[in-house]
Amino acid sequence: RERTRAFINHRRFQQFIVGVILVNAATLGLETVPSVAARYGDVLWAIDHVALYIFVTELLAKIYVERARFPRDPWNIFDTVIVGIALLSTTGGLSVLRSLRILRVLRLLSVVPSLRRVVSALLRAMPGMSSIVVLLSLVLYVAAVMATKMYGEAVPERFGSLPTSLFTLYQTMTGDDWGNIARDVMQEHPSAWIFFTIFILICTFVVLNLFMAVVVSAMEE
Amino acid sequence: RERTRAFINHRRFQQFIVGVILVNAATLGLETVPSVAARYGDVLWAIDHVALYIFVTELLAKIYVERARFPRDPWNIFDTVIVGIALLSTTGGLSVLRSLRILRVLRLLSVVPSLRRVVSALLRAMPGMSSIVVLLSLVLYVAAVMATKMYGEAVPERFGSLPTSLFTLYQTMTGDDWGNIARDVMQEHPSAWIFFTIFILICTFVVLNLFMAVVVSAMEE
Amino acid sequence: RERTRAFINHRRFQQFIVGVILVNAATLGLETVPSVAARYGDVLWAIDHVALYIFVTELLAKIYVERARFPRDPWNIFDTVIVGIALLSTTGGLSVLRSLRILRVLRLLSVVPSLRRVVSALLRAMPGMSSIVVLLSLVLYVAAVMATKMYGEAVPERFGSLPTSLFTLYQTMTGDDWGNIARDVMQEHPSAWIFFTIFILICTFVVLNLFMAVVVSAMEE
Amino acid sequence: RERTRAFINHRRFQQFIVGVILVNAATLGLETVPSVAARYGDVLWAIDHVALYIFVTELLAKIYVERARFPRDPWNIFDTVIVGIALLSTTGGLSVLRSLRILRVLRLLSVVPSLRRVVSALLRAMPGMSSIVVLLSLVLYVAAVMATKMYGEAVPERFGSLPTSLFTLYQTMTGDDWGNIARDVMQEHPSAWIFFTIFILICTFVVLNLFMAVVVSAMEE
Ligand code: NA
Ligand code: NA
Repeated sequence: RERTRAFINHRRFQQFIVGVILVNAATLGLETVPSVAARYGDVLWAIDHVALYIFVTELLAKIYVERARFPRDPWNIFDTVIVGIALLSTTGGLSVLRSLRILRVLRLLSVVPSLRRVVSALLRAMPGMSSIVVLLSLVLYVAAVMATKMYGEAVPERFGSLPTSLFTLYQTMTGDDWGNIARDVMQEHPSAWIFFTIFILICTFVVLNLFMAVVVSAMEE
Repeated sequence: RERTRAFINHRRFQQFIVGVILVNAATLGLETVPSVAARYGDVLWAIDHVALYIFVTELLAKIYVERARFPRDPWNIFDTVIVGIALLSTTGGLSVLRSLRILRVLRLLSVVPSLRRVVSALLRAMPGMSSIVVLLSLVLYVAAVMATKMYGEAVPERFGSLPTSLFTLYQTMTGDDWGNIARDVMQEHPSAWIFFTIFILICTFVVLNLFMAVVVSAMEE
Repeated sequence: RERTRAFINHRRFQQFIVGVILVNAATLGLETVPSVAARYGDVLWAIDHVALYIFVTELLAKIYVERARFPRDPWNIFDTVIVGIALLSTTGGLSVLRSLRILRVLRLLSVVPSLRRVVSALLRAMPGMSSIVVLLSLVLYVAAVMATKMYGEAVPERFGSLPTSLFTLYQTMTGDDWGNIARDVMQEHPSAWIFFTIFILICTFVVLNLFMAVVVSAMEE
Repeated sequence: RERTRAFINHRRFQQFIVGVILVNAATLGLETVPSVAARYGDVLWAIDHVALYIFVTELLAKIYVERARFPRDPWNIFDTVIVGIALLSTTGGLSVLRSLRILRVLRLLSVVPSLRRVVSALLRAMPGMSSIVVLLSLVLYVAAVMATKMYGEAVPERFGSLPTSLFTLYQTMTGDDWGNIARDVMQEHPSAWIFFTIFILICTFVVLNLFMAVVVSAMEE
């Protein structure tokens, strides 16, 4: 066990795994090019399976080494999920599942130390933001129900149903094309500018404070 | 009174109210789906009224408990307004009023402690921003009067009247589609790029400083 | 002179001036409504002239009071310029000049203390930003000359001349509709995505650092 | 050598070089105006060559003065590359090369001290951002491979090949027109809103943290 642990944690082995991930990322990218896929499909398929085999072996070795402590490290859970999706997406016949094969490239996040640190920092910032995200979702939901009732009949392609309204208002929140959306509505409901102006002001204000929370939490560290 | 107070402030009762709000939010959302509204309209209507009854009872209980101190807490005012709108929107026949029924979901803001804290933080940040908001409004008004006079005849659908100009320039301020708006104007007034460039520079500059004010006020806390 | 000074600096007098500015802002806005302008044009015209008369008198009183010290306060220069434009725009026959009449509303900036402070803070932040603004302008100019040479023939309505390119790239810099602009160019020059991607990356990077400079300077205060 | 060094580093000489760069920037800009290029082409051509001659002489003088220490200063490498491109673009017949002539204006960055400082600050901020840029690129690549597989057939002009998908998702990341892109895809794949919403949330979240990293690194200085 000690020798397996030493082997797995050796810098050279880690670099080898990074290399396998990058090569696999390249083959998965090349597969999307029809001419390459037609001619070298077999080679790409072979590399893909070898890479998957290496990932599975590495994971099993890590489980063998760490035993009971294995599930305590969230990165191990992450690796298990990624390899699990990779196994599922190879065997599965569903088109969506097959397009998830590329997700195994995300293993880079757990293997490369600097990426690992960045993602950890991101995740640590999350709890401080959760209340504001809940607040934004609440604003979005309330606004979507109101917009569906008020503008659903006039502009069905934008506000015809609750999911459609949620999408349109999420788009409005990111500031994309909201002027044209509002103008469409205002042709039938001239007072709709009130709704959109208030909605954008509230969202901007909340996002500004989301930002403030992030800066403050960053300074406290 | 003491027993009512203990009952109202009990953690379990608060969770019950949160549950009622969430169920009511769901029924108000389901009402926007025509097939569900047609089939289960009566059930949704019943749940809606029970929820409203609970909100009114809770509010009256709180008034009975806190008496003279009740109006001193701004959150109580907020709850009263929300329940008031809820009562009005149920009895009222106006279409706009009926679409305000969803606003009662905002009671979550006063019931859930973490949301309450976030909203309080947002409101405390407001006074520090008010001067800059007044400044932005002033810039918007001055620019809208100028644009209406200069471009109103050439591009009436964008700058035909003061309200239209205000809307178009508010949209420009958020950076949405301003290139096409400016290009429309520049077909008749080739020098309009000066107006738009200066307007966007001033707005960006002021917003940048709004941001600066928020960061500084966040650090002072 | 002392009595004039006391009178001018009295809080009541300042509030009176703010009132005159607000009333004048309203009449200048009402003038853009054709029906109101047709019916009450004379009244609006009269109020406008009274307001201008008050502004000129106030300015002269201030000059009389402060004498040699008058031009040392930049806010006095600002007031003089604003009143000067107001006088010019009333007498002048040029259409552009007449639309500058609304600029006198900007006197609010020098009269209301909180706005005065905000504008002063904005101006103090300027020197720290000037190098980055020069850098952005340099990037914009270099990119515009290159784009005019490379894409001018293929997409003349976007990059046909240096001013057109400058406008298009300024728009790209603000992120407005750049995807469609790039796509238009890429139909003839498929490699144009390199130009646009690099340009946007550089601009984003520089703006990010402009921001950093603002935050740092805000913290130093 | 000492006299050449004194001459080169003299403030007057530096100002002279800045002047040459600005004049050259103007002539390169004027060249894009067809009427000016037709009439004064020879003059512009002459000024251009004199400027290039001055740049080369200055560079050689600097090499003569600094000798072995010359390549240690990154700004000297920068100057050599810029002058090298300038020489290549004058002799070269390639159209792209000729449009690179304007790049010599970037010599301003190394000559003007304040710009030099700003660029140095920008470059120093880079290492702290590199992990997050790698993370964003990884997210972009993974999303592009997935989108090409899932939506390539339905919307070939947006996701038909890996480079096209990369471009479209880069555009989505900047928030430009993403609502219309998503709507196009959703006509065939109604569930595509999940993909776009998650993609935008992840990108926003990572960029927010990129920002946080910049602010924190700025504060540490
Ligand atoms: Na946009
Ligand atoms: Na847009």
